[in-house]
Parts: sequence; C-alpha cells; structure tokens
Amino acid sequence: MIVLDRSQETPLYIQLYEALKSEITSGAIEDGSKLPPIRTLADELDVSRNTVEMAYQQLTAEGYVTSRSGSRYRVENTNHTLHEPKDNMSKIRQTAGSTQSALKQAGLLCGKTLQDECERSSEHQIEFDFAYGNRSEGSFPSRLWITLVSEALDYDQGASSRYSDPFGEIELRQIIAQNLNATRGVQCDPEQVIIQPGTQEAVDALTVLFDASYDTVAIENPGYDGVRRVFENRRFHLVPLDVASTPERFRESLEASNATIAFITPSNQFPTGKILPLDDRLAILKWAAQNGTYLLEDDYCREYRYVGNPIPSLQSLDTNGRVIYLGTLSKMLSPALRMSYIVLPHELLEVWQNVYSNYYCPVPWINQQALLLFGKQGHWDRYVRKAFVTYRTRRNILIDTLQATMGDRIQIIGGEAGLHVLVSTNDSRTQQELIQAAAEKGVGIYPTHQYWMTPYEDRPHHLRESVLVGFSAIQEDQISEGINRLKAAWFGA
Amino acid sequence: MIVLDRSQETPLYIQLYEALKSEITSGAIEDGSKLPPIRTLADELDVSRNTVEMAYQQLTAEGYVTSRSGSRYRVENTNHTLHEPKDNMSKIRQTAGSTQSALKQAGLLCGKTLQDECERSSEHQIEFDFAYGNRSEGSFPSRLWITLVSEALDYDQGASSRYSDPFGEIELRQIIAQNLNATRGVQCDPEQVIIQPGTQEAVDALTVLFDASYDTVAIENPGYDGVRRVFENRRFHLVPLDVASTPERFRESLEASNATIAFITPSNQFPTGKILPLDDRLAILKWAAQNGTYLLEDDYCREYRYVGNPIPSLQSLDTNGRVIYLGTLSKMLSPALRMSYIVLPHELLEVWQNVYSNYYCPVPWINQQALLLFGKQGHWDRYVRKAFVTYRTRRNILIDTLQATMGDRIQIIGGEAGLHVLVSTNDSRTQQELIQAAAEKGVGIYPTHQYWMTPYEDRPHHLRESVLVGFSAIQEDQISEGINRLKAAWFGA
Repeated sequence: MIVLDRSQETPLYIQLYEALKSEITSGAIEDGSKLPPIRTLADELDVSRNTVEMAYQQLTAEGYVTSRSGSRYRVENTNHTLHEPKDNMSKIRQTAGSTQSALKQAGLLCGKTLQDECERSSEHQIEFDFAYGNRSEGSFPSRLWITLVSEALDYDQGASSRYSDPFGEIELRQIIAQNLNATRGVQCDPEQVIIQPGTQEAVDALTVLFDASYDTVAIENPGYDGVRRVFENRRFHLVPLDVASTPERFRESLEASNATIAFITPSNQFPTGKILPLDDRLAILKWAAQNGTYLLEDDYCREYRYVGNPIPSLQSLDTNGRVIYLGTLSKMLSPALRMSYIVLPHELLEVWQNVYSNYYCPVPWINQQALLLFGKQGHWDRYVRKAFVTYRTRRNILIDTLQATMGDRIQIIGGEAGLHVLVSTNDSRTQQELIQAAAEKGVGIYPTHQYWMTPYEDRPHHLRESVLVGFSAIQEDQISEGINRLKAAWFGA
Repeated sequence: MIVLDRSQETPLYIQLYEALKSEITSGAIEDGSKLPPIRTLADELDVSRNTVEMAYQQLTAEGYVTSRSGSRYRVENTNHTLHEPKDNMSKIRQTAGSTQSALKQAGLLCGKTLQDECERSSEHQIEFDFAYGNRSEGSFPSRLWITLVSEALDYDQGASSRYSDPFGEIELRQIIAQNLNATRGVQCDPEQVIIQPGTQEAVDALTVLFDASYDTVAIENPGYDGVRRVFENRRFHLVPLDVASTPERFRESLEASNATIAFITPSNQFPTGKILPLDDRLAILKWAAQNGTYLLEDDYCREYRYVGNPIPSLQSLDTNGRVIYLGTLSKMLSPALRMSYIVLPHELLEVWQNVYSNYYCPVPWINQQALLLFGKQGHWDRYVRKAFVTYRTRRNILIDTLQATMGDRIQIIGGEAGLHVLVSTNDSRTQQELIQAAAEKGVGIYPTHQYWMTPYEDRPHHLRESVLVGFSAIQEDQISEGINRLKAAWFGA
C-alpha cells in the first residue's frame, strides 16, 4: 500500500518514486515483476498519469526498472551492489529539478506546444540563450530557398505530381556522395546514399535490416538520447560504452560488449566533444570486422572542426563494409529542413533494396530538388564556408570569455569541433543548481543528465554536473554579455 | 545442382524459380531450411542478383518460402495440401509476366532509377497511361505553392532555423481536425492529430505503440501491399481478411482472426473499391471494443466519392477509442508532398507522447507552414472541389467508354469512389495476357497480383485476373482514345 501525503512540500511523484524504490530495494516488489499500468495506478492513487509516469521515469533513469516501447515497466534492479548515498533526498531533488529542466529544454528545442508548457514551468525570462541544435534567427537563406523552390518546380512540371525515387533523387545523392568524398574521404557510389528526414528516422529504418541475431546495440554513455530511444522503442538490448575516460577504456568497453551493432560519434563525441584518435579507429574497425559488428558512425557535425586536422571518418578507413555512415543537414543548413542521409555498405544496400522495395522516399521531392540545385549552383560549399567562420568566431568568443571571467573556477569540456561545449564548476554544486542560478539571471544553459544510461552515483563528477552551453542559437554579439551574466550568477559580480 | 539454359526463351529467373520450386515440392530442399543468400547464389550461377531476387520473390508470393526483414529466405511450403494446377507453366508465365509489370509499375510510380529499369524491360512505348497514384502533369498548384513558401518564410523568421513541434505544427493540426470533422464526422482535438510523411511511415511509427501481446494484424486480402510490407518488416503475424466476397464474410473473417490490430479501408476498399455498409461498420466497432482490437482506418481517398451518400467514417461512429484514423495529402494535393496524418484515440495519444517524447517531426516545417497557409487562405476547400469535379469527369468518361466499347465482354469493379477501377474480361485470359496485349497497343494498365496474400489458386477468377485502370495520371482528353485502343488490343478493331 502506497500512501501519498498531499500536505507535504515534496512533489507527489517524488513521494511515489521513493515509495516504489523502497519497495524494490527491500524486495517487497520482486525483480522481474511488472509495475501497474500508469493509468491503473493513477486512478488507484487519485493522481494524474503524469505523476505516475514521472515517478516511473525516475526509477528507469536510475536503473530500478526497465521500460520497453508500449509495454509495461518492469522491475529490474541493477543497483543491488551500488553504494546508496547518505543524502538520498538531495539527490532526488537534484534529479527532480533536472527533469523540469529537461522539459524546459524540450520546450525550447521543440516549438510552441511544449514551449507553452515550459513557459508555465519556468518563471525566468531567458535573455541569453545558449541552446544547442537550433540555429540563430536569420541563418536560413530564405530568399535563395524561395528561388530554388521556384526553379525546382519549373525544372520538372511532372515531378511535383508523382512519387519519386524511393531512396531519394539520384542527382542529390550524387552531390552528397561527392561532397562526402571531398570532405570526409567517404568512398561510395551515389546508389549507396539514402535520403532520410533525420538521424532518428534513419536509425529506425536501419533497424529493419537486422534479423533477430542483431539484438545487442552498444551505445555511448553519455550519448545521444534520441537514438538511444529509437533502439529502446524497437526493443534492442543496450550496452553502454565508456566514453567518459580514455580511448583505451572506450575500446575495451566496445570489445567487451559483444554487440553486433554499435552507434558512435567518433569525430565529436556527443556530448563530451572527444575525438577518437586514428589508432583507435583502426583498432575498432579491425575488431568490428572480426566480430561481424556494424558500426553506425554518426558524423553529425562534420562541417565544424576548429582545432587540429580532421581525422578521417571511420567509413573512409573501412575496408570490410562494416561502417554505416550517418550525416545530417540539420547542423549544416537547418533542423527545420528535415533532411539527413545514410551511406550503406554494399551488403546492406542489397538488404535495404529488398526490404524497402515498395516504400516511398519520406522526404518531399520539392525539398530534395531545391537542395539539389543548392548544391549544383555552388551554394552548398559557399554556405558551409560561411557557417564555419560564423561558428568558429562564436566558439572563440565563448571560450575566451569563459576563460577570462571564470578561468580557474571552471572546466571547459570539448569545443574542438561542433556547436557546444560542456562546462562544470570546480566546486560541489549540482547541475540543477548551476542551471537554476543562471536562469535567475536570464541565462539559458542546459542539462546533460538525460544523456546518461548509468545511475547517478556511477557518473564521474566533472561530467555528471556539467552543463551544456551551445553557440548555434545565440547571436555573436550576445555571447560576451551572456557569459558575464553567467559569471555573476555562479560566482557573484 | 541448378542448371540454367541461356539459349531458352524462358527468362532466367523463371528457370531458377522452377528449379527451386521443384526441389522444394520434391522435398530435396527441406522445409525450414534457408535458401542461399542472394549474392552467393547469383555469383554461383553467374546471374544478376536481380534474377535471384525475382525468383525468390515469386516463391514467396506463391507461399513456398517466407522472408523476414534482412534475414535469409526460408523454405516454408504452405502449398502441400493445395491442388497443383495442370497447366503449371501457363500459371508461371502469368505470374512471371506480372512480376515484370509490377517492376514496370514501380518504375512508373517511383521515378528515374526504377524507370530506367522499367524502360529496359519493356519494349513498348506507353502513350495512354492509366497509372494509379500519380497525378497528371500540371495538377500541382506550383505558382501558388511558391507564394505560400515565401509567405511561410516571412511569417516566422526563426522557425526556419529551429526544430518544430515534434507532432506537427499545431495550427495545421487544427485545420486538419476541422476539415475531418466537417467532411468525415471525425471527432478529435487538434492534439490527437499527428503529422507524418506518408501512410507507411505512419503505420511504422504506430507499431512502436503496441507491446508484444499485439502481434497479430488482420489485413485485407487483396489489400494495400505497402502497409502489409510494413507489418512484415516489423515481424507481425498477418492474417488475411476476406474482402473478395460479402460484407458478412469480411466480418466473419475479422472476428475469426482474433487480431489485436486490423488495417482496413472501409470507405473504398483497395483495390476492389467496395464500400462497407453502415451496419457492418457498427458491428465491427462493437466487436473491436469487446475484443480490445485497434482498427486502423485508412481513409486514403476520402475526397472522392462519386456515387451515393458517403457513409460515416469508422472514427466518427466509434465511442470506445478503438479507431486509429489515417489520412493522406497524396490523393488530395500531391504524392510528392509527402504529408499524411494520424488521428489517435486518447489512450494511444498518451502512449505516443511517452514513446516519441524526444523525436522530431519528420515533415519539414516549411512544407507544414505552406500547407497551413493553403488551408487558412481557403485554397484547400477550393482545390478539393476542383479536383473532385476533375476526377469525377475523368471517371465518368472512363466508365462510359468502357461500357460503350466493351460493355458485355468485361466487368468493371469499383469506381464509386477513389481514382481507379478494376477491369476483368469475361473470358479465360490472364492478367498478364491482358496487360501485354494493351502494352502492345501503347496502353498502360496495371497488375493486381501483388495485392494478394493467398496463393493464386485460391483467388476468385474475376478478381484474380482483373487489371487496374487508374484515372489520376491520364489527362481527360486522352481517356476515350486510350480505351478505344484497349478495346482494339483486347477484342480487335
């Protein structure tokens, strides 16, 4: 029997989370048993479904229960041997707070409906938004795009009225293949390039290619939660890869995983920004060939490498057809465009053609044709060069200002490539405290807890409490003032 | 040992199909064993992979082997107890021919790459193309669309640079909800409407919502092969529904299926064109509520009902949240737009929000915003009215000319709604013979064999040999001459 006390200040979902957790750790709820359906428990306790769901998600995040798409939450306590921290409550409050922040982040990333949600749950007006993923207003070449759409519709009167190539316009795939070859050494025919709306859709489509023997996926921890969710939704077994320490440790964890599929971001690990050295790339390719593993290489921000020489993509080093290369236009042109691509090894291309023979390409012909003209007319190269300079400048201002204002009191993690850095303070403050303090001064910085698969206790402190500071959405002239505000928020004026 | 004879007129893939089939029926290849990988056998026999694949597909279509996504073809002869027709070879040639036609149709539907394939395999120039699905050139409102894209980009400078609502722009969902309510009686809040690129993507996304207890899908036979493939690719167990005889038989087969999911097209069964009467709709809704079954109602051509009063959609009659309503813009505006929608019952909406909380909407913001303005400015209603008149005229000319030229020698099936009819001749000619004869006179008509799940022998003759005659791609002034040519091709001048 669970009793919730509405007079307490502790939110109901935390009370519920604590009650369930105590029953699980005491063994009153047995390992392997299922938790009641959300609706049932919500009715029983007379609370909202959201309350039950948040409690279940917290238990999931901390490794007490597992959740599979659509099916019920199942008790699978992986924490038996873990040290229980003394100050349990402060930990709960921390994660509780960061759930709110995650909601808020989702709101800022995902537009109106959720934004409203976010605005209701946040009292602070964000003036300086160091969001990740979105681009700053005005970065999309609107006038040019309208011209290209117009040219596309003139170019082929018939194509706007019919189904197009199921794998994408072949001329566009040609342009992408050439561009990948020139910039990342990727070796492929245009036929190996498949157009998709986004990386999550691409991975979801790829899951169909693998038979039941490919049931284990190794995935970076911390790593991109969006793709992790795709694999969870399709009921794969996930094994975390250690990207928090050394490349050797990463390789060891990959090899120990015995995974038949691995999803990795070797050229700018998300979110830590680590870059996998060449030797380690060669070693994991060798292992993948021996083990029969497919490596999904997500080269999501290949356009932005600021420090040192780029290391060749895994795909360019692979001689055994083990790499599935993934790229996106979201970081290059706009996330609103919904366009990404897969480069398949020949063996899988054959399976893909078989499995998807009577599907249609999910990306609209008009957008593909406009992008094709964007490439053909030389805009693509020019635009990337310009964007590179823009983001390098923002990055330099960001890092310089962080160092100038808070140099000895913070750690800056990553930033050699991509569109964000992680920042942690050299004190005992939690992620949530740092985000909250920033928000009170009108500065938007973001949580990273959602990228972890391992329980809170097992995360290294400097990464666990680090916050995400992006520089793709904020305008250049706002960065210095934003960071000065952050300094005042964290360490006083 | 398989020996192929290149000097024979019989295509290599038919020789291969026959050789394998004889080994399977004789027991030389055992039930449960796997066929060699396509690549391996192609190398061994020195034929193209396409040849092997077509042979395997033919064996699959006829129930000798099964294929699961990505994994190898497996011998699973379901024909043991079936009567083997005497004239086996004529049957093979028939299905063989129609495989070619299917390829050709895929080519015509799917653009360049496949079209080349098709042009290589077809010697005849099609002057009168009664294709289905595609729209005639000039039907897309290009000028208007460019204006709308331009207005969309002006409307919100920021939205073109960021991720948008994960379930679709709420204003667009509002317009769709209102339109569905006004035209099909669909009862829903805008929040229940989810924007997707196409019906296949929508169904694929829906499969994530169901736990392992929802493993059986009842699906129309004959029916839309595209969605059948989605369920096959996601490894659901499929049960065929009898749509070839009476509504009673359909209901019986649905109730006997014990399925937890059913995919149906009650308002214009594809491809037979049958319309499910109101009483049967109410009866299956009652059964679905009792059995806990979700009914996926694909109302793919709701805009085109020419004869009689429209029957209310299942969704509008459902009081128990058992109907998932699916609609598309492909038939209304253009298949090149890649836009469709799902209307979820409240219970599943909650699951969807949970499962897809950190995904992005796969449909580009620009296209959504342009369509939203298309609706807001009243173009949607005007365009549908105009399209309705256009296709009703084409349909009337088509049916009138068919009756005037071949009235007593053919059966016209369907045509009360939608964008195609089926035609069969009152003689013993096969589908392939009819398609071939038409092609020789420059008339493109299309096979229907790919829509069947049951073996050739079990299909009722009038449906089995019927060909698909579409009127969405052909211009109005070509229809009469095309049908006159068809008459000459089939019955002489």
